[in-house]
Amino acid sequence: MSVTMRDVARAANVSIATVSHVVNDKQGARIGEDARRRVLKAVAELGYQPNALAKTLSQGRSRFIGLVADAIASTPFAGQIIHGAQDEAWRQGYVLLIANTEGNAAAEKEAIAMMLQYQVHGILYSTWYHREIEVPPPLQHTDTVLVNCYAVDAEYPTVVPDEEQGGRAATEELIAAGHRRIAFVNTTSPSPAKTGRLAGYLSALEAAGLEYDASLVFEAEPAQEGGYAVAASVIESGVSAVFCHNDRVAMGLYDGVREHGLRIPTDIAVMGFDNQEVIAAHLRPPLSTVALPHYELGAAGVRTLLGIGMERGSSRLLVECPPIARASL
Amino acid sequence: MSVTMRDVARAANVSIATVSHVVNDKQGARIGEDARRRVLKAVAELGYQPNALAKTLSQGRSRFIGLVADAIASTPFAGQIIHGAQDEAWRQGYVLLIANTEGNAAAEKEAIAMMLQYQVHGILYSTWYHREIEVPPPLQHTDTVLVNCYAVDAEYPTVVPDEEQGGRAATEELIAAGHRRIAFVNTTSPSPAKTGRLAGYLSALEAAGLEYDASLVFEAEPAQEGGYAVAASVIESGVSAVFCHNDRVAMGLYDGVREHGLRIPTDIAVMGFDNQEVIAAHLRPPLSTVALPHYELGAAGVRTLLGIGMERGSSRLLVECPPIARASL
Repeated sequence: MSVTMRDVARAANVSIATVSHVVNDKQGARIGEDARRRVLKAVAELGYQPNALAKTLSQGRSRFIGLVADAIASTPFAGQIIHGAQDEAWRQGYVLLIANTEGNAAAEKEAIAMMLQYQVHGILYSTWYHREIEVPPPLQHTDTVLVNCYAVDAEYPTVVPDEEQGGRAATEELIAAGHRRIAFVNTTSPSPAKTGRLAGYLSALEAAGLEYDASLVFEAEPAQEGGYAVAASVIESGVSAVFCHNDRVAMGLYDGVREHGLRIPTDIAVMGFDNQEVIAAHLRPPLSTVALPHYELGAAGVRTLLGIGMERGSSRLLVECPPIARASL
Repeated sequence: MSVTMRDVARAANVSIATVSHVVNDKQGARIGEDARRRVLKAVAELGYQPNALAKTLSQGRSRFIGLVADAIASTPFAGQIIHGAQDEAWRQGYVLLIANTEGNAAAEKEAIAMMLQYQVHGILYSTWYHREIEVPPPLQHTDTVLVNCYAVDAEYPTVVPDEEQGGRAATEELIAAGHRRIAFVNTTSPSPAKTGRLAGYLSALEAAGLEYDASLVFEAEPAQEGGYAVAASVIESGVSAVFCHNDRVAMGLYDGVREHGLRIPTDIAVMGFDNQEVIAAHLRPPLSTVALPHYELGAAGVRTLLGIGMERGSSRLLVECPPIARASL
């Protein structure tokens, strides 16, 4: 898998000792300019990474697994992915090397380079919300699993939440509670969550023999402000229940519903999505929702990287989003 | 600082090669039972950690800094500490090795042992909320900085938020907005946040020449449910403003205030504490609050560990909690 100093020496037509001197920038070693140039060229072309870690480790690769996260400081989502990945890594005898990039491309590049230098066994590349990405080129130098994200034009093992199943589960909960006219407040942001949860909503309606009414599907910014803004339209539509794209939208909708003098769930039932910490369980009334399985995404990402339990031939694992019953329906 | 194989050899009165054979459990090496026992005894007594990392690293210690966090999955607080620590570590040429324990003692012990095996330059031991801890014994084997926590009976460099200054800043904001009768909803949980924020509230009142009225200090569970439960009493006290122990309490208080038909800030001004992501900026109206400086705690922890910028002789760094103005007063 990984390029060795021997490969570089062969490509540059020099000895391994010469490669070592150049790569380690040894003082006092006399290396001709031409040889030095050839070594550096071969290093660049082959993508060779100097080994910063133990040559005393008997394995060719370390017991490190890298995890690149894009936003651990702003939501608990990445933290839950990390928690799951770390638990599973430890169970398998690996140590998780975590880098947080906060979406900064330079930090990401540096993080991946560092991980490759430390000869990680492989890298989990994760995003805090489910989305399409372009895979950073250096990731081709190691085993990579995409967690909570996916690439269209590249073949990487991928672990993502099953948005459609989640949207179906949310709608089924409302149907099971007796509702027949159910609004769906979707997000304005194009995303697999947007298309997947809508597909789930539609399939649940169909399975229950309920007719789809396009006027009951709304769009809102996926935050409290969006939920608040759409509340009047939802109420006006005359539905008895609403499935919100996420818990933050539901929280804003709560405010709007209250300002109209209506009560939840008596006048209108509300279903969220995400089971977001700090919010979902603590709204008034506590919010019924569907959990995003971040912990399990991280754990399954590690298992996939280590070749444990994934079906042969499958490169995309869909993780279930379970419904969480509380008091809003 | 760290115990070497040579130290073990001397204590056990054997050669370094013998120590190496025992420690690395070499097959085929003939070590007498007595010598083996002496080596293992010396290893245990001296707290020797075998070097799992590169002997090729020219430094005695690695470029790793360990960070032990207790809860990265349930709040964004630990994530912000990690973000700050990582940015600063990278600026200084170090790599952060993060372990999340979720409060599990066995996981914590294992995490610290792993970090010592990887010969971290030192360890930041952090908690997601500011509190007293007992320092895990293995931390005496490396440089340790306590972040967002402190130990009473041990001398470790400590980086914590300035709770008293934060409480004073929150109260001053309300005073500056013209309020004279200001309630304080403190937490029921004994903690430095409880005593510090109260001290800040009192000192701000005193500095403004306002008399302290003990009947205006309430206690509530530090969550939405607590804020909701205390709302009626706060309203009954006839104050024009309330400083809440944290943003979650303020969020619950918002619900209670609304149910009494009162408006924020027209009828009652509300100040939070924490500047908690996902909540503070998205309440209706957006919540004025005081920020807990988690990012800066992490960054300052790394600087302290590396001996950068901390005043000589000072072993406790108080980090300022800045007020954040929004629309609730």
